[in-house]
Amino acid sequence: MSGQGEDKVTSWFAQQSRAREERFPIGIGDDMAQVNMGGGSVLVTTDMLLDGVHFDLASAGAEQVGYKAMAASLSDCAAMATRPVCAVVAVALPTGFGEDKLKELHAGIVRAGDMFDCTLIGGDITAWRDNAGRFVINVTMLSECVDCVEPVKRSGAKVGDAVCVTGELGGSIAGKHLTFVPRVEEAIEIARAADVHAMMDVTDGLVKDLSRICAASGVGAIIEAERVPMTHAAKEGNDPLEAALYDGEDFELLFTVSAEDYETLAGEQSIKAGITRVGLITDSGRIELQRGRDREVLDVKGYDHL
Amino acid sequence: MSGQGEDKVTSWFAQQSRAREERFPIGIGDDMAQVNMGGGSVLVTTDMLLDGVHFDLASAGAEQVGYKAMAASLSDCAAMATRPVCAVVAVALPTGFGEDKLKELHAGIVRAGDMFDCTLIGGDITAWRDNAGRFVINVTMLSECVDCVEPVKRSGAKVGDAVCVTGELGGSIAGKHLTFVPRVEEAIEIARAADVHAMMDVTDGLVKDLSRICAASGVGAIIEAERVPMTHAAKEGNDPLEAALYDGEDFELLFTVSAEDYETLAGEQSIKAGITRVGLITDSGRIELQRGRDREVLDVKGYDHL
Repeated sequence: MSGQGEDKVTSWFAQQSRAREERFPIGIGDDMAQVNMGGGSVLVTTDMLLDGVHFDLASAGAEQVGYKAMAASLSDCAAMATRPVCAVVAVALPTGFGEDKLKELHAGIVRAGDMFDCTLIGGDITAWRDNAGRFVINVTMLSECVDCVEPVKRSGAKVGDAVCVTGELGGSIAGKHLTFVPRVEEAIEIARAADVHAMMDVTDGLVKDLSRICAASGVGAIIEAERVPMTHAAKEGNDPLEAALYDGEDFELLFTVSAEDYETLAGEQSIKAGITRVGLITDSGRIELQRGRDREVLDVKGYDHL
Repeated sequence: MSGQGEDKVTSWFAQQSRAREERFPIGIGDDMAQVNMGGGSVLVTTDMLLDGVHFDLASAGAEQVGYKAMAASLSDCAAMATRPVCAVVAVALPTGFGEDKLKELHAGIVRAGDMFDCTLIGGDITAWRDNAGRFVINVTMLSECVDCVEPVKRSGAKVGDAVCVTGELGGSIAGKHLTFVPRVEEAIEIARAADVHAMMDVTDGLVKDLSRICAASGVGAIIEAERVPMTHAAKEGNDPLEAALYDGEDFELLFTVSAEDYETLAGEQSIKAGITRVGLITDSGRIELQRGRDREVLDVKGYDHL
């Protein structure tokens, strides 16, 4: 693999893949993979979260950590406009973790799953053998298509599409990253009401994740600075726009639809999180920021896990 | 939860479960869970393996670690007599892990998967932020039923059944735990040729795993010491029988069938790994060892992950 970072690694893995399309319609590089098996079709996502990287177990508490781990996977199900069904959860426990904390963790997992009728059906519990080993949690979640709506991939954005987000962006680290409600219901409503061309959840920052949709779709985009919705936490910081563009773990939906479909969606009062058009898909191949009359090409920075 | 250890934790989790049987025919506590979803039926297993616990990355090398992680999950598919279809793999990388080792890991994952046409379809790569974080790999595998053979659970053992194993037991730590070939083909052949009442793979030692089948089925068992097949590695140790009864990670099949079906299976030359009857299911509720004319009740010890 050439170059740096997570996306290069992901594309190297995707290039190696020998998955046949009739068996695996969606493979490496989207929010979930799709598999035709067992007489039907299922989607699957797996996510590993580490103490000291994705959360601080000592300050967050085991219940919130269990909630966050499940919620992050539920957000992947939302990213494809699919309905979560069940999850298996594996954990590595530090020595002396104890029963009470394990029960708290379980309570958080179940609290998140119960919001969307997503059932814990199995798992694996293992333990480090010395004091140096740290807590790890891995959630794998299965989802299914809703009615006749196909899973929404990242690769369908078209020039002229409205770029939209749910909710508000930035400053998640102040607390939202532990307490967010995944946009499962919103995603299904949006996909029912409109022909969604591309969608994902915002986990590594708006600019970086939008660049992923653009790369998968072979397009570019303009973000309109004045339109980017910011959380209260982002507004309280030194540079609210910077926070809204680049902070990780918003867990909002980022999607593109035609201008007409955007008008339809804007009129849907039932979508609780609210939808904002933040920009436009272009043929530039770049991510640009429009601020008043100025337009600049943005660096595609943002959270990189590697 | 009362008492100690992994099995107590697993049963506490199973008691908490609210999985409805029509949606989830097999839940927490078997080798895989079964889910009816997406218009079909799939089985799922997840396993987390830790550097310094399940392998030593420095001495085994990343390729063998990737192989072992996949092979352990393939063995779970075998344990239910199901056919593996695909896997998602998540890893936590220590700082400075590097591209070369990641490619070796990938090669080992693919080598194991290719044996049984099990495709890597996605994953998650994350990294520790400091030098103290250690390598973790989590494999989640999906499998499907073969022809009309239902997945074989642990709970169907009947008094009078022959207790059988494939291959040889003990001493896996000498090398087999990194190189074993999961008994996927054997499991399918056995389930086609006989009415298998209960099955699992031997991961925590014959006695402990047989006690799990007995607990799930509400029965007991006698192991006949003279009949237990031992690996060369076990025979080289101080106490070969002890190794064959209690060592972990044999990754052989342990199953029960009627006496008549055992005779049928014993005649099947095509089952490569070979099948040995090692004992008998009883109504005692205990695991006993018959050695010549002596019979003793065994301690259910063996590898405990907690």
